[in-house]
Amino acid sequence: MPQLTPTDQTRMVRGAKRANYDTDTVHAIIDAALICHVAQILPGQKPLVTPTAHWRDGSWLYWHGLASARNVAATPAQPVCINICLVDGLVMARSAFHHSVNYRSVTLFGVPETITDPAEKEHQLERFLDRVSPGRWPQLRPITASELKATGLVRLSITEASAKVRNGPPVDDEADSDWPVWAGVMPLQRTWGNPEPDPAGLQPGVEPPLMG
Amino acid sequence: MPQLTPTDQTRMVRGAKRANYDTDTVHAIIDAALICHVAQILPGQKPLVTPTAHWRDGSWLYWHGLASARNVAATPAQPVCINICLVDGLVMARSAFHHSVNYRSVTLFGVPETITDPAEKEHQLERFLDRVSPGRWPQLRPITASELKATGLVRLSITEASAKVRNGPPVDDEADSDWPVWAGVMPLQRTWGNPEPDPAGLQPGVEPPLMG
Repeated sequence: MPQLTPTDQTRMVRGAKRANYDTDTVHAIIDAALICHVAQILPGQKPLVTPTAHWRDGSWLYWHGLASARNVAATPAQPVCINICLVDGLVMARSAFHHSVNYRSVTLFGVPETITDPAEKEHQLERFLDRVSPGRWPQLRPITASELKATGLVRLSITEASAKVRNGPPVDDEADSDWPVWAGVMPLQRTWGNPEPDPAGLQPGVEPPLMG
Repeated sequence: MPQLTPTDQTRMVRGAKRANYDTDTVHAIIDAALICHVAQILPGQKPLVTPTAHWRDGSWLYWHGLASARNVAATPAQPVCINICLVDGLVMARSAFHHSVNYRSVTLFGVPETITDPAEKEHQLERFLDRVSPGRWPQLRPITASELKATGLVRLSITEASAKVRNGPPVDDEADSDWPVWAGVMPLQRTWGNPEPDPAGLQPGVEPPLMG
């Protein structure tokens, strides 16, 4: 399987056995998550981290926002670090020390670039929505030129990236194997709840959206 | 209700109507989340963001890890920015532009400090586990001095902090109110799945843990 090349920033020292540079694994984790956390350095040497929705097109990670938002306006040509983390469960061991979390995490480094071409912006926004709710884009009131202009679009190459994954049961000290406490995994699940129709405006007699 | 005082870093310019400096709101969001994202600046002006489990004691946010982990060893006396974000649903509007996310988010700034006193470390780790699974700590094989030593504990004062919250239905352009597409909120729910007992070791005839 294709592999990403570890760099000084992505080569894992701690928890190296959980490190994964497989491109498909990295892409699958990115695709499974709705939001990422973008870290950047503001003037005055101040770190800033902001949550934002993201999507992927091939080997590029995209995010958008108001064109003036700091994680959109101030990141191009500046180094960022992005993390995506899905918590899959809590690992309940027989000692406090071996309690853990089952998770899938991707960390990316790089310098983002801005997309300014309106047609490419529209194409990517359609991709984004299509990932969230397949087939919805053509049903919507079409996007306008001024809405496109107000939307900033940024992307980062998925090149300097790594995944870190923990799954499976607790790993206890052998001496604790018969300690009389329940041990195992409490899975954490994410599901869509019942659709909540907008009480305002007209609600046509159509089905709630399909969710990707 | 007690309020946090906005600073240059926490005073919101964009989305100011969603800003919230109410202490109880900030604390409740922190308590509802399992993980936070810690952003720091590494030597060479490189941003780093890492996900980590957190807990709260009064007006302090705590996190822990291997004593050598970068978000534990390298953050004290250095500025960090921390975000906690709970995605509550996707807001499906009648135009792409007004699609949104319902969320509860807290952002904190400050300089963390390390806790080195073993008794205080043990007390806080017990608080952490008790929040995740009330009553579990006394059932476990007791923590050892070397385990305590290997665990780094860091805390940040919840002082320079703000919450940002969006909830409720889409807010469409008035002209779009009768556009023939389903509009509303798709709630995202998090639930505990069926406990998965550890296949290794002895599994005593006890109930799975109570989850907080």
